[in-house]
Amino acid sequence: MSRDHQTDLPQVQNGSSVQNYGNALDIYPLNCYYFGSKEAVPFKDETTSDRILRMKFNYDAHGLRTCVQAVMLVELFKHPHVLLLQARNSIYKLPGGRLRTGESDIQCLKRKLSSKLSAVGDCSAPDWEVGECLGMWWRPDFDALLYPYLPPNIKRPKECTKLFLVKLPESQKFTVPRNLKLLAVPLCQLHENHKTYGPIISGVPQLLSKFSFNIIES
Amino acid sequence: MSRDHQTDLPQVQNGSSVQNYGNALDIYPLNCYYFGSKEAVPFKDETTSDRILRMKFNYDAHGLRTCVQAVMLVELFKHPHVLLLQARNSIYKLPGGRLRTGESDIQCLKRKLSSKLSAVGDCSAPDWEVGECLGMWWRPDFDALLYPYLPPNIKRPKECTKLFLVKLPESQKFTVPRNLKLLAVPLCQLHENHKTYGPIISGVPQLLSKFSFNIIES
Repeated sequence: MSRDHQTDLPQVQNGSSVQNYGNALDIYPLNCYYFGSKEAVPFKDETTSDRILRMKFNYDAHGLRTCVQAVMLVELFKHPHVLLLQARNSIYKLPGGRLRTGESDIQCLKRKLSSKLSAVGDCSAPDWEVGECLGMWWRPDFDALLYPYLPPNIKRPKECTKLFLVKLPESQKFTVPRNLKLLAVPLCQLHENHKTYGPIISGVPQLLSKFSFNIIES
Repeated sequence: MSRDHQTDLPQVQNGSSVQNYGNALDIYPLNCYYFGSKEAVPFKDETTSDRILRMKFNYDAHGLRTCVQAVMLVELFKHPHVLLLQARNSIYKLPGGRLRTGESDIQCLKRKLSSKLSAVGDCSAPDWEVGECLGMWWRPDFDALLYPYLPPNIKRPKECTKLFLVKLPESQKFTVPRNLKLLAVPLCQLHENHKTYGPIISGVPQLLSKFSFNIIES
């Protein structure tokens, strides 16, 4: 092995050994962030049939349901981690929620991030920096699986879920409802792990694969 | 169901029912394109162990191997299809290949697309419109699987494969080596079909999921 190869690590880490046109992303260590808790939030959807009934009711009233979710990254052990909310020990979600009538994707995502991750009435809470759309998943029918495309011959999809990159600042305080946990999960644990995380979250490493991560030392 | 929902189809198809900031992509019907054949190309890598030997030899000589591949789309039955090359009836590949020393990603991809899909010495062949990088896959070791991230503690990855969107013009002639077939495969057949297409191709529908497709009628 020649001496040249010894320098591969720093080159790959800072993204300079592969040409990467503007797809560099700064991420900060987990210990740059502070975590607190606030009052619990009520959970919807006790059962699958409850959820389907609620989706049908809302579709008849409002049509296609659009959800927006945030992909937020931190660094731990030199590897990118995604922030996930965990409910009832087994349900993992990207932070986000459903659009109100007339609301834009970005307005909704900022509202949901503040309601789920900021202290109530915290005026010093930073504005959320919502970046590009990373992907969209479609639910062709109320009780159907999700697909990363509109399946052929589906004329009236029932739900569209859009993932947005949200760039975290160098430091921030997250205030999380007492009945939810905020977790940082490594990309290598999410990848292809449908069984634990479902299709959307287990596909996040692929959606992020075009980025070179600049790990900023604290 | 109210009358409003009857209009979901055209809204979804032209991307106006979901807000989609600049991620609309024009695609043209398969019958806009012409297909011819040219002399067969020699195949490398008769066996897996041959391939690993060749990769080791090249790594010692040149370091990290970078490959570029093209994602090109056509429309058929109102659904996006990806152009794949098929060799020996069971091997599917996105068109592309390996960078030469000093070559840029885009130079390499154009060279490879011309050598694989244009007639020899065809001066009327259009320039290829190479768009954004959609994703990158890493091979941590010669005999290892591919990952859509650099796995933790990997200091000297052996291969990086980058996927680029290549926007096809309204019409074009493809001239394909006689021992390869050019296929148009629907997104719904590729999605999660690792067994047939491998991890890179079966993940393409996810990498494209942020786009709304404008199907241009011929």
